[in-house]
Amino acid sequence: MSPASYSRAAAAARSGPIDEIFAMLAHRPDIISFAVGSPDTDLLPVDLMPELVRRATAKYGPAILQYGMTQGFDPLLGHARELLGTRGISCPGRAIHIATGGSGALHNLCMALLDEGDVVLVESPTYGPAVKGFRSHGATVREVACDEFGIVPEALAEALSPEVAFLYMLPTFQNPTGRTVPAARRQQLAEVVLRRGALVIEDDVYADLRYHGDPVPALWSYAPENTVYLTSLSKTFAPAVRIGIVVLPERLSDRTLALKQNIDMQTSTFCQAVATEFLESGHAQAHLARIIDTYSSRLDTLVTALDRYFSPEFRWRKPDGGMFLWLEGPPGFDADIAVRSALEQGVAYLPGSVFYAEDGLRHRDTIRLSFANVADRDIDRGIKRLMAVFEDRG
Amino acid sequence: MSPASYSRAAAAARSGPIDEIFAMLAHRPDIISFAVGSPDTDLLPVDLMPELVRRATAKYGPAILQYGMTQGFDPLLGHARELLGTRGISCPGRAIHIATGGSGALHNLCMALLDEGDVVLVESPTYGPAVKGFRSHGATVREVACDEFGIVPEALAEALSPEVAFLYMLPTFQNPTGRTVPAARRQQLAEVVLRRGALVIEDDVYADLRYHGDPVPALWSYAPENTVYLTSLSKTFAPAVRIGIVVLPERLSDRTLALKQNIDMQTSTFCQAVATEFLESGHAQAHLARIIDTYSSRLDTLVTALDRYFSPEFRWRKPDGGMFLWLEGPPGFDADIAVRSALEQGVAYLPGSVFYAEDGLRHRDTIRLSFANVADRDIDRGIKRLMAVFEDRG
Repeated sequence: MSPASYSRAAAAARSGPIDEIFAMLAHRPDIISFAVGSPDTDLLPVDLMPELVRRATAKYGPAILQYGMTQGFDPLLGHARELLGTRGISCPGRAIHIATGGSGALHNLCMALLDEGDVVLVESPTYGPAVKGFRSHGATVREVACDEFGIVPEALAEALSPEVAFLYMLPTFQNPTGRTVPAARRQQLAEVVLRRGALVIEDDVYADLRYHGDPVPALWSYAPENTVYLTSLSKTFAPAVRIGIVVLPERLSDRTLALKQNIDMQTSTFCQAVATEFLESGHAQAHLARIIDTYSSRLDTLVTALDRYFSPEFRWRKPDGGMFLWLEGPPGFDADIAVRSALEQGVAYLPGSVFYAEDGLRHRDTIRLSFANVADRDIDRGIKRLMAVFEDRG
Repeated sequence: MSPASYSRAAAAARSGPIDEIFAMLAHRPDIISFAVGSPDTDLLPVDLMPELVRRATAKYGPAILQYGMTQGFDPLLGHARELLGTRGISCPGRAIHIATGGSGALHNLCMALLDEGDVVLVESPTYGPAVKGFRSHGATVREVACDEFGIVPEALAEALSPEVAFLYMLPTFQNPTGRTVPAARRQQLAEVVLRRGALVIEDDVYADLRYHGDPVPALWSYAPENTVYLTSLSKTFAPAVRIGIVVLPERLSDRTLALKQNIDMQTSTFCQAVATEFLESGHAQAHLARIIDTYSSRLDTLVTALDRYFSPEFRWRKPDGGMFLWLEGPPGFDADIAVRSALEQGVAYLPGSVFYAEDGLRHRDTIRLSFANVADRDIDRGIKRLMAVFEDRG
């Protein structure tokens, strides 16, 4: 490269339609937004923070302001092991580490696993920022065909060429579709992965936000030596504490941690100590119950509103948890174009096309609705407004 | 790559002699350690934290637990601009952003500026973890010859080949040598950089820890459009808040921030809000005065002890600030070998050889002594012990 110029990764990083929508929303609090996939700000446990910090400083002293071990703050590692135990995941020794949020976890894994020219397989559709991240490491991102139960096992087997570094998937309450891959399909996918000696990154950040039905075992439990499991406290505590949790096959652990030192030295010991107190205090359980109650009720309101206002040409499936509902419009419906009119009418969503790694324009009839941080009253008004916009264009 | 295997970056990441020494120190609190380059844990302002958090939550509410703007938390950006103003650096608009510590800042810059095969120029010796980071991005790291005033301008001119992405330097209280590049040399270096259209990353994390003499203008002030300036609150507040500050030429700003989203989404808003309160409260000034007083006294103690116990064959120069003193032994002295005996005798240091990007073994006669987190009494005992070890081997 010539001096003082961008890397290829930077040259490829550009803002897209999402950034435009978010930039607009930042200045328009009057818009009812189903666009942003974050927890409800008003439910974030800010009132607990002084007490959690008081307890953490009293218990651990100045060490929580110092550099610490790259693997993580020991008391938090203990609680993380316990949390994962409730999901059937055991992670002794160095198989577990604390990352700087789910994004930090994923970036560290990219550094550890990806070389220029590698292929990453993803669900169709999938979480957009992950695709951006894979590409910033020079990877080619390929979609694997999905049906209503998730990735089609035969399609996965076919896609697993030697250049594939890993398969990235969100089997539970997927962002953007809300879909949960059933146990039987997980087992089938794990069999393909095991047979081919492949590696999966299982992104499970919504796991605890279940509103209906029984928990499904993590993909990890069917292929622990071939799965990197990651989760975070962003949805169940607070995004701003930036706490991710990663479980790695032991053979991939040491150098991933060595690279983490280059990325951010370590995840803030201070945030880790605060998160420890949150998990230890009993507040965690109460808070989870509270947000499950609220988000679940919002999902019900959303589905009621969709039933009430939307024409049957629009199809959706009520998710069992998480923060997203996926809407598919009738033939000829164009969510990419309608988003402008919707914004003008005071309602925002993300077009589904932005969640496809390949040829998103083929999927302009899809929409992601994020319901977790929209108040019940706004959900009803917003969906009514949205249908008016869509009918107006029909 | 084959499935489930490391990237080239990970394959190259291995633990070195430093990690071994640190691993040993973690279990031996009885060892007097001049090895670790971190602030004194006992001086970290842990008692302030509950009050800072109480103020931040009262003032900003739940927003400090939510995702925020990638550029940073607005009130902290304001204080950061003020802080940089005291160093003669102006950074309007998007020229400034908040990073996840100094390491996070540097990693983000690597993502934005480095491609496989690029060359990064560094001082000889330089900060070791930075070299590791550059290499993890596929860069070749080359040393530029230094004299007692820093990089030799003619050597820089010669080294600036077309493959050079940037020059990385720590002009003030350098880690590991403690050296400060005088204003005249900064100007000469800036002239070379400007003439060649090169880019410099100026790592200035020790700037505020000045014990003697007058501040020297940042290299940035001689070549603002060709310099990326980075600093952090790790030394003057706490490492664990992971707050870095970056000033970029505006042309490099947008995509660097776009890539930051892939790395860690954003720096913890919670930590940023706490840091804001620290800077706003007046505690920051009082704390800085306190650590300057302590560290400066420890440096005096160190120099007195060196004068007292060390043979004149060992040479050093008292730094004007920072946390490090650089020791050069007589011909034939081998700090890499002596470190084992020193540890056995209860005293630790880092061999200077680990701070060289090229052929460190040629510099086995050098030692970095970190004095900031060693109590006065231990400094005297430690240096006495160290000389005993060295004489024993002589």
